[in-house]
Amino acid sequence: MEEVLARAKRVRLVGFDVDGVCTDGKLYYGASGEMMHAFHARDGLGIVRARQSGLVLAAITGRVSRNVEARLSELRVPHIVQGAARKEEALGAILTRLAIGWSEVAFIGDDVNDVPCLRRAGLAVCVPDAADDVPAHVHLVTERKGGEGALRELLELVLKAQGGWRIDIGA
Amino acid sequence: MEEVLARAKRVRLVGFDVDGVCTDGKLYYGASGEMMHAFHARDGLGIVRARQSGLVLAAITGRVSRNVEARLSELRVPHIVQGAARKEEALGAILTRLAIGWSEVAFIGDDVNDVPCLRRAGLAVCVPDAADDVPAHVHLVTERKGGEGALRELLELVLKAQGGWRIDIGA
Amino acid sequence: MEEVLARAKRVRLVGFDVDGVCTDGKLYYGASGEMMHAFHARDGLGIVRARQSGLVLAAITGRVSRNVEARLSELRVPHIVQGAARKEEALGAILTRLAIGWSEVAFIGDDVNDVPCLRRAGLAVCVPDAADDVPAHVHLVTERKGGEGALRELLELVLKAQGGWRIDIGA
Amino acid sequence: MEEVLARAKRVRLVGFDVDGVCTDGKLYYGASGEMMHAFHARDGLGIVRARQSGLVLAAITGRVSRNVEARLSELRVPHIVQGAARKEEALGAILTRLAIGWSEVAFIGDDVNDVPCLRRAGLAVCVPDAADDVPAHVHLVTERKGGEGALRELLELVLKAQGGWRIDIGA
Repeated sequence: MEEVLARAKRVRLVGFDVDGVCTDGKLYYGASGEMMHAFHARDGLGIVRARQSGLVLAAITGRVSRNVEARLSELRVPHIVQGAARKEEALGAILTRLAIGWSEVAFIGDDVNDVPCLRRAGLAVCVPDAADDVPAHVHLVTERKGGEGALRELLELVLKAQGGWRIDIGA
Repeated sequence: MEEVLARAKRVRLVGFDVDGVCTDGKLYYGASGEMMHAFHARDGLGIVRARQSGLVLAAITGRVSRNVEARLSELRVPHIVQGAARKEEALGAILTRLAIGWSEVAFIGDDVNDVPCLRRAGLAVCVPDAADDVPAHVHLVTERKGGEGALRELLELVLKAQGGWRIDIGA
Repeated sequence: MEEVLARAKRVRLVGFDVDGVCTDGKLYYGASGEMMHAFHARDGLGIVRARQSGLVLAAITGRVSRNVEARLSELRVPHIVQGAARKEEALGAILTRLAIGWSEVAFIGDDVNDVPCLRRAGLAVCVPDAADDVPAHVHLVTERKGGEGALRELLELVLKAQGGWRIDIGA
Repeated sequence: MEEVLARAKRVRLVGFDVDGVCTDGKLYYGASGEMMHAFHARDGLGIVRARQSGLVLAAITGRVSRNVEARLSELRVPHIVQGAARKEEALGAILTRLAIGWSEVAFIGDDVNDVPCLRRAGLAVCVPDAADDVPAHVHLVTERKGGEGALRELLELVLKAQGGWRIDIGA
């Protein structure tokens, strides 16, 4: 945990997969195809606070979904890459543009196509219900499952390590 | 538990957060944005009985959702405040209008923006899957999770403490 | 369990509540009100087989939902009573019409408004996540939760006790 | 497990039930009938990789749903049989056409109408929350539940046994 906190202190960008991380992996299909995604309210509050604290956020997903666009743009996630065949190239391009190094990246994923990003990230994280080959490549497994606050848990960890988390007490 | 029951006896108003309390925190998004919320039937029966017993009910939520309006107005929750940036001010205004004191309030929440209300409420309650910093500020953690009867559990506790709960036996 | 099987052998009608029994209690609301219900496929197969074996089926629910009508009529449940303020009266009227006695009824519920039916039924059953005051009034608590096969479990129990269950082997 | 791997090595076709296997069995109904199905993202990635590795995929389901058609055709599952009254006949016809033997089939199901296929399949698999009479007829019970990656677990097992699974590392 010491090492995880040391890694969390260096983080400037939090990259995340969507299906299985921001959701429990469920894809709700109607007769005309994809119909909805189930995001989590506490992830939303975490994203808002992370943004306010100056963390850069980047969603990198292999699928393409208008539901994901609807939710993440409402939360003003500045970088949303969908349909990424090679996630490490998509995220790498963002890092180059922002002059952020991979050691300053926290990345959270759940499946084997997230492994290239996890192997490069300064802080690699996965959900507890990740695919079998994923946990071997991370520094931390979250307690909360995908879609139940896993992303929030990572954001809170980074913000707390950096002294940027606050609890409201009221006037 | 003795103290919790003593606090429950004094309650005249039950305030509650919505996402993560009346629901499991999931926000169902389609291509055009928020699509639905999953409420629980037993919370509904609890709300109806609490209302019939004379308890005042107040929903205080930071987000704005027409789904929430649809469900809570159907259940005739008399006070529904959405988009509350500071929940303690929103609830405080209702209390002033009704001449109810904070010591007569039970409040149930799940996230850090509920803490100001929890710190003021005579009976402060959170769900078992609340955000990490919340349980330190409550008198009681419900057994049922948000969206699975947590609100009902609180309402039943208050009504039972006040002798206002009844089980149907039939004629 | 001996007693439960003896009771199951006498059953001619299986009555059941809907929300919390055929579903996990979740009520999905959109901006215009109730939007959908989540039923379970294995309950459906159980209903079909129970019908084929000559058991009478009766759904008795306190709410009114077109989603419930859509699902249960597709499964050809012959008696569907919605908006029942007093469930024991609604079911009692059906029993009188069919000349079936309460001792020949199995009933499964999850909330306090099911208690009058449970107290009269020859075989009273509730789901494991029922409201607190319900289990005291039943002969059996199912292993499967509401919406995850609880009704199927009861139907299978009754059919097996009566020798009317079969497993497909194929030609 | 040795025997399971030996059986997995011989598999050329993976047959699967849909409700309760690709989903958690939930059928979402609105006022006009069936509205949606919840599939899982990691099953999707497993199907894509299995297809790329040359495994034949066949969905055999007793119900008829346009949601199922929408999802499985998007994933280009080549054989989709809906409304199969006798699943073993439906799958048997496909096997004859492709000159694949039952010993080269892996089949995963959850309910009693899957038993005829399970009894014939070279590798018979069911989900952990299958109906009571199903596990007696399988060689393997998956760890993941239906709709939470059970199909992916089977596909990954077969591909790994055959040396056809790869983890992305990136350039």
